[in-house]
Amino acid sequence: MKALFFDGTLSVREVVRPRPAPGEALIEVIYAGICGTDREILQGYSGFHGIPGHEFVGRVVECAEPAPKSWVGKRVVGEINITCGQCDWCRRGLGRHCSHRTVMGIIARPGTFAEFVTLPAANLHEVPAEVPDEVAVFTEPLAAAAEILEQMPIAPGARIAVLGSGRLGLLVAQVLGDAGGDVTVMGREGPQGQQGPQDPPDRLSMTDAKLRLARSWGLKTITLGPDRPGTDGRVAALAKSFSVVVDATGSPTGLEEGLRLVEPRGTVVMKSTFHGPAHFDTAKLVVDEITLLGSRCGDFSVALRLLREGRVKVEEMVSRVFPLTAGPEAFEHLNQPACLKVLLKPSPAPADGPVRHEG
Amino acid sequence: MKALFFDGTLSVREVVRPRPAPGEALIEVIYAGICGTDREILQGYSGFHGIPGHEFVGRVVECAEPAPKSWVGKRVVGEINITCGQCDWCRRGLGRHCSHRTVMGIIARPGTFAEFVTLPAANLHEVPAEVPDEVAVFTEPLAAAAEILEQMPIAPGARIAVLGSGRLGLLVAQVLGDAGGDVTVMGREGPQGQQGPQDPPDRLSMTDAKLRLARSWGLKTITLGPDRPGTDGRVAALAKSFSVVVDATGSPTGLEEGLRLVEPRGTVVMKSTFHGPAHFDTAKLVVDEITLLGSRCGDFSVALRLLREGRVKVEEMVSRVFPLTAGPEAFEHLNQPACLKVLLKPSPAPADGPVRHEG
Repeated sequence: MKALFFDGTLSVREVVRPRPAPGEALIEVIYAGICGTDREILQGYSGFHGIPGHEFVGRVVECAEPAPKSWVGKRVVGEINITCGQCDWCRRGLGRHCSHRTVMGIIARPGTFAEFVTLPAANLHEVPAEVPDEVAVFTEPLAAAAEILEQMPIAPGARIAVLGSGRLGLLVAQVLGDAGGDVTVMGREGPQGQQGPQDPPDRLSMTDAKLRLARSWGLKTITLGPDRPGTDGRVAALAKSFSVVVDATGSPTGLEEGLRLVEPRGTVVMKSTFHGPAHFDTAKLVVDEITLLGSRCGDFSVALRLLREGRVKVEEMVSRVFPLTAGPEAFEHLNQPACLKVLLKPSPAPADGPVRHEG
Repeated sequence: MKALFFDGTLSVREVVRPRPAPGEALIEVIYAGICGTDREILQGYSGFHGIPGHEFVGRVVECAEPAPKSWVGKRVVGEINITCGQCDWCRRGLGRHCSHRTVMGIIARPGTFAEFVTLPAANLHEVPAEVPDEVAVFTEPLAAAAEILEQMPIAPGARIAVLGSGRLGLLVAQVLGDAGGDVTVMGREGPQGQQGPQDPPDRLSMTDAKLRLARSWGLKTITLGPDRPGTDGRVAALAKSFSVVVDATGSPTGLEEGLRLVEPRGTVVMKSTFHGPAHFDTAKLVVDEITLLGSRCGDFSVALRLLREGRVKVEEMVSRVFPLTAGPEAFEHLNQPACLKVLLKPSPAPADGPVRHEG
């Protein structure tokens, strides 16, 4: 089968189609989504070599005992953590933190940038008929966004700032708005002509286009200037005025900005993983008694419910669909200023050249 | 009156005795305690110039209307944040976060390293008769230690590590043990002959003497080697094994160590302020969904109750009492390896030379 492979560089390869181990399903990938973590992996995050990718929607084509045969033919999404099922974490229902886990496309397990992928049947969730493929592929990042609700209460009308107008930021903003928060999305206008692969797309120019999308969903937005964090007058005027700030910038400077915006006793939620350390003023954290909350994967059933009920908009976030074989170009495309979500479509075999889908 | 004054260097000065403003009390200081924050102030923290000091026990000698005259003659301790009483924070009973506040000896208000100090009568708490002066002077740091209980629940038997066997660490360990936690105090044995003013005393050799004290109170202890954080085998073996880790090291590396010791979904409490930034691996925070909780001042009435009921031991922590006029030497003494708490005694005028009190 065809797959993207990363071993220091990303390339398209012909690899052996995987066979499901006992209890696993073999899934034909319909769409795979590229996420910030995948970009980080290409920069060295987690030291992963192999087939990346962890967002997908697909169809089960085979099951290995004791996985129920009834899965075959079903359209599914799948939890990305493959757990031992035995440890304390697994027994407490928190297998996402199992210390023996592998993580599809991130830690010691092939991912979804391929024609086929295997997963334990226990990881699968059937996609409701009313949720189209292009929507279902957002289940994993939306579950991650909704994880915040499982970790902390959102008071009705709570003033919430979401830093970063990229894919994750727009999902988080919608989820917290739906939960009753008074949400403002902040995007940073980057300096012209300084776009590079290191710069996450949500820090580049054309931020306005993304914020327009957010406004069309009823969210408040603020476009910040290209200044360094700490020098922006807009941020200074809003200092200490939000009870919750979510850092979805994918940048080490997001935390610094979040700590400026959050009020005493407030919470800064860190949603994005990136390669390298962040530094911050601990005195600010201690004196203002700030809570810094790390937040990762979430419950797929919550995300599927939000998608089925149309409470979160995702289709407009698909900027472009590339065939799997154009994977390296798809990663390049993420550097385009206005780009939000890029999907890979492994099958059926596409016509030549990238397929423009939307945006 | 005599006072210690910091304007880049610390010296003993003759200054004008303060007069209480309307609503304030004039207090004769019996003992003042030196805390890690005072040391940080001498390194530049908060940019404070003036009379430092915020821990004290004293006696009210005068009140200015509308402060009730009934305070006069009473033995008191006092909250260090002087608030506006009008803002949202004050109305919510969280005046400690009032954005218009001054802080005695820390922000724009003279402190307790003097013969007399003024405070609003509203800040005062009467010391119960059964609590001696040498015990009552621990009210402020003990309230700060107990603040953790107000911010988060401690599950019975929760595995808790307290990093740092200094003053604050030993108070925090006792409070969390009293609250039902299974507490281990960790002190780091420093390299011989490398003690300097920059090194907080709890990171120097003689850590064992402090941990012996902790053991005498029924706490578990671990002496770590002089290695850099991240290279200590003892820490590696305990990685991810505590649900709560309190960083009371007063060092930027404490956070790094705390993040190694805490289990997924656990909490690292940051108790100590220090001058300068800390850096940490944000991916660890996000992937393991760690909560980082800043914690500062606490409720004095809680601390006075703990002291009155003898549930926290503090008298053995007094290493030495210096006369106020030997203030600079008292700060020097804090660099002694086994030193825990140093008190200043402004009045009555002492005999010449430092007074050895205990230890």
